[in-house]
Amino acid sequence: SGFSKWTQSEKINWVIEQFCSDPKAAQATLKNFQYDSKQQEVLNGFSENTLSNFPLPYGIAPHFVINGRSYAIPMVIEESSVVAAASAAAKFWKSRGGFSAQVLSTIKEGQVHFCWSGEKSLLEKALPNFEALLREETSTFTENMRQRGGGLERIRIIHLPEVGPDIYQLRFHFETCDSMGANFINSILEKAAELWPQYISEVSDTKEEMEIIMSILSNYTPSCVVRVEVSCPVSELGGFPGGMSANSFAYRFKRAVDIARHDVFRATTHNKGIFNGIDAVVLATGNDFRAVESAGHAYATRTGQYRSLTQCEIKDDVFRFWLELPLALGTVGGLTRLHPMASLSLDILQQPSARELMQITAAMGLAQNFSALRSLVTVGIQKGHMKMHLYNILIHFKASREEKQQAFDHFEDQVVSFGAVRKYLEKLRGELG
Amino acid sequence: SGFSKWTQSEKINWVIEQFCSDPKAAQATLKNFQYDSKQQEVLNGFSENTLSNFPLPYGIAPHFVINGRSYAIPMVIEESSVVAAASAAAKFWKSRGGFSAQVLSTIKEGQVHFCWSGEKSLLEKALPNFEALLREETSTFTENMRQRGGGLERIRIIHLPEVGPDIYQLRFHFETCDSMGANFINSILEKAAELWPQYISEVSDTKEEMEIIMSILSNYTPSCVVRVEVSCPVSELGGFPGGMSANSFAYRFKRAVDIARHDVFRATTHNKGIFNGIDAVVLATGNDFRAVESAGHAYATRTGQYRSLTQCEIKDDVFRFWLELPLALGTVGGLTRLHPMASLSLDILQQPSARELMQITAAMGLAQNFSALRSLVTVGIQKGHMKMHLYNILIHFKASREEKQQAFDHFEDQVVSFGAVRKYLEKLRGELG
Repeated sequence: SGFSKWTQSEKINWVIEQFCSDPKAAQATLKNFQYDSKQQEVLNGFSENTLSNFPLPYGIAPHFVINGRSYAIPMVIEESSVVAAASAAAKFWKSRGGFSAQVLSTIKEGQVHFCWSGEKSLLEKALPNFEALLREETSTFTENMRQRGGGLERIRIIHLPEVGPDIYQLRFHFETCDSMGANFINSILEKAAELWPQYISEVSDTKEEMEIIMSILSNYTPSCVVRVEVSCPVSELGGFPGGMSANSFAYRFKRAVDIARHDVFRATTHNKGIFNGIDAVVLATGNDFRAVESAGHAYATRTGQYRSLTQCEIKDDVFRFWLELPLALGTVGGLTRLHPMASLSLDILQQPSARELMQITAAMGLAQNFSALRSLVTVGIQKGHMKMHLYNILIHFKASREEKQQAFDHFEDQVVSFGAVRKYLEKLRGELG
Repeated sequence: SGFSKWTQSEKINWVIEQFCSDPKAAQATLKNFQYDSKQQEVLNGFSENTLSNFPLPYGIAPHFVINGRSYAIPMVIEESSVVAAASAAAKFWKSRGGFSAQVLSTIKEGQVHFCWSGEKSLLEKALPNFEALLREETSTFTENMRQRGGGLERIRIIHLPEVGPDIYQLRFHFETCDSMGANFINSILEKAAELWPQYISEVSDTKEEMEIIMSILSNYTPSCVVRVEVSCPVSELGGFPGGMSANSFAYRFKRAVDIARHDVFRATTHNKGIFNGIDAVVLATGNDFRAVESAGHAYATRTGQYRSLTQCEIKDDVFRFWLELPLALGTVGGLTRLHPMASLSLDILQQPSARELMQITAAMGLAQNFSALRSLVTVGIQKGHMKMHLYNILIHFKASREEKQQAFDHFEDQVVSFGAVRKYLEKLRGELG
C-alpha cells in the first residue's frame, strides 16, 4: 500500500526480497542495466514504478531507397534475423528501382458516445451550430495546430442500434500534421463531451436528457493510410538461394501471398512478419506499436475476413508486390523527441515529416515480408534461424569463442536442438579438458 | 556493400557521417546507451547490425492476486499511465477475490502448403503411414520434448480451392510445453516438407508431381487460449472517481464494453488498451509481442467482425468482466533465459510455467482494460494523461525541479498544450530572471 510513493530503492528492495530466488543477484542485474542518474531520470519519467531499463538491440538496416532517396533505417527488435532480412531485401530492390511509397490519406478519428432517447433529427439539426461553438471554445488550444494546417475537420452523428436503441456516437475527423495527435484529439473530444449535452438541452424543448458514455480517439485509422510498392520485369528477378529460375520464383512467391489472402492461419503469420519490420521502426522512432498493430490488424479484416496486408500481381511479365496499411505516426510530440534514442533515429532518418515516416515504415514492412517469403519459397526459414538459435544456445552454455566456432562448423549440416548442442559441448569439453 | 561484415565502430561512423546532423552528438548518444562490453556482447548477439541499445522503462505492478496467489508483475512499456493503471486495477480487485484465470487449451499449429493435381483421396490414404514415418525420422530431435509431455499431436489435410484447385496444406498440431516452440515446430515442418513428396511418389502409381510451396508454424493459435475473469456483487463496486454509484458504474461500464463489441472504431482502441498491458509482460519476459498481437487481433475477428476481446455481463446483481485470448508464450527457449532482464522477470514471477505465464499475462490485459474503461466512463482519461503530457513537455524545456512544481500547480485546472507550457515557462523565467 502506498507502493507508488516509495523511492525506487524501496520498491526494488521490496520486490526482490518478496519474490526473487537470489535477491543479491537480482539487485545486481537491476543496477547493471541502469544508466547514470541524469539519463535515468528521463527514462524513469516515461512510466511509473520503474526499477531499471529493459534494453532492446538498436540496429540499422542500410540500402533502402524510397521514392529515390537513400536511407539507413534504425530498427529496435529483439528477434534475430529481422534486421538482416530487411537489409537483404533493401539491397535486392535498390538495383531494381527501390520502393515507391505514397500516403493516401492522413485523417484520424475520434468518438464521443452518448445515450439519447429523443429524436435523431433534433441532433442533426443542432450539429452545425454545435460544431461552430466547439471550434470557438477550443480556439486557443487549437491555435498551434491550425497554424500548421491541421485541426478539426468535421463531425458526424452515427446511430448504433445494434448496441441499444438510444446509443449514438459523434464521430470526429482530425488532421494532426506531424504529431500522432492523441492528446490533441482527446482534449477536444472531452471538451465536446462537456458542451454537447448542455447545447442540446438549451436548443431542445423536450425533457429528454442526454448522457455521455465516453470520449476517446480511435486507434482505427482507415483514413490514415500509406501504400508502398516494388516492381520489376519478372526476368529481372533472380539471384535466389537454391538457384531457382526467375519465373518459377515469381509464381511461387505470388502463390504464397495468395494463400495468405485466403487462409487466416497463414495470414496471421504473414502479417506478423510485416509487423516485425514495422514495429522495429515504430519503436526506434518513439511511436506506439500497440496503436499501429491494432489499426493494422483491424484493417486486415475490413473485407469481413482476416487477410494478408500485402498483395502480389504478375501481369504482362511485370512482378508487382505492394503493402497498404494504416499508420498513425508522429515525428513531434509523445516520446519522439524526448527519448534520446528516438530523437537520434529521426536524425538518422533525416528529420522526416510524419508522412515521410509513414512511407519509410511501410517500406520496411514490405521489405520484411519480401525477405520472409523469399526464404519460405526457396530454401525455407530454418537454415537462417537455426544459426541464431545455435548462437543463443551457445551463449546459454557460456561457450568460448573457440567452442562457438567449432560448433558452427559442426552444426552446418546438423539439426540444432538444445539437447544436441549440450551433448556436443560436453563431448568437446571432455576432449579439450 | 559488405556492411554486415563491418565492425560496430565502422557501422556507427558510416551512419552518423552519412546521415546525422551532428555526428559528434550522435556518437555520444550511441555510446551513452551502451553497457560494458560483456553485457553488450550478449545484447548485440540477439540481432544484427547493432549500434547500441534502446532502453525501455522496466516497471513493476504490485497487488495482483491471480488464482489466489500474489504477484508483482514486471512491465516493459514506454507509454505513461499504463503501469499506474494496472496497479490500480489489481488493487481494486485484490479485495474482491482477485483474478480467476484458466488455460483452455495449449495446442499450436503449423502448415506445409503444397500443389497437388492428383486425387485428394490418395493423400488421405497415405497420411497415417506418412505420419508414422515422420515421427520415426524426427525421433532423436523430438526426444526432449516428448519426455516433457509434448510433441507432434496430429496431422490433417486441408484443401484450399479458393486459392487454386491444386492447393493443399498439411495442418500439424503440436504441444510444446513450456517453450513457445517456433524452432521445434519449424524444424519438424521442414522435415515433413522434405519427406512428404518423396513418400507420395513412392506409394502412388500416378505421374503427378507434388510441389512444396512453403512450411512454417502459424502464429494464429485459437487452440492455445486463456480465459481470465473478475466478478463481484454489483453492490461491492464503488470508490470511483466522481462519486458515481455502484449501479450506475456497472451499467455504464457494461455499455462501454458492448459498444466495443459492435463498433470497429471503438473495438480497435479497446483492444489496443488490452495489449498495452499484455505486451508489457510479453516484452518483460522475453517473449514475442508481434506474435501475440497478430494472434490476438485475428482471434478478435473470428465471428466475421472485429470485436472487443473482453466481455461484460450483469446478471442476478453480479458484475462479471472477462477476457479470452490466444497467448503462445514460453518460459524456456528464445530470449526468456538469455536476456538478463527477461530472466529476472521470470524470477520475480516465481518461475512460472508457460500455462501460469498465460494466466498472469491475461490478468494484466484484463486489469488494463478495467482501468481504462473505469476512467473513460467516470472522469475521462485526459486528466491523468495530461499530467504526464505536461511532465514530458517540461522535460523538453529542461524545466528545473522548482519550475516543474510550479507548472504542475498552475496547470491543475488549465488545458495543457505545448504552446501553453512554453508561454508559461517564458513568463515564469522572465519573472524569476
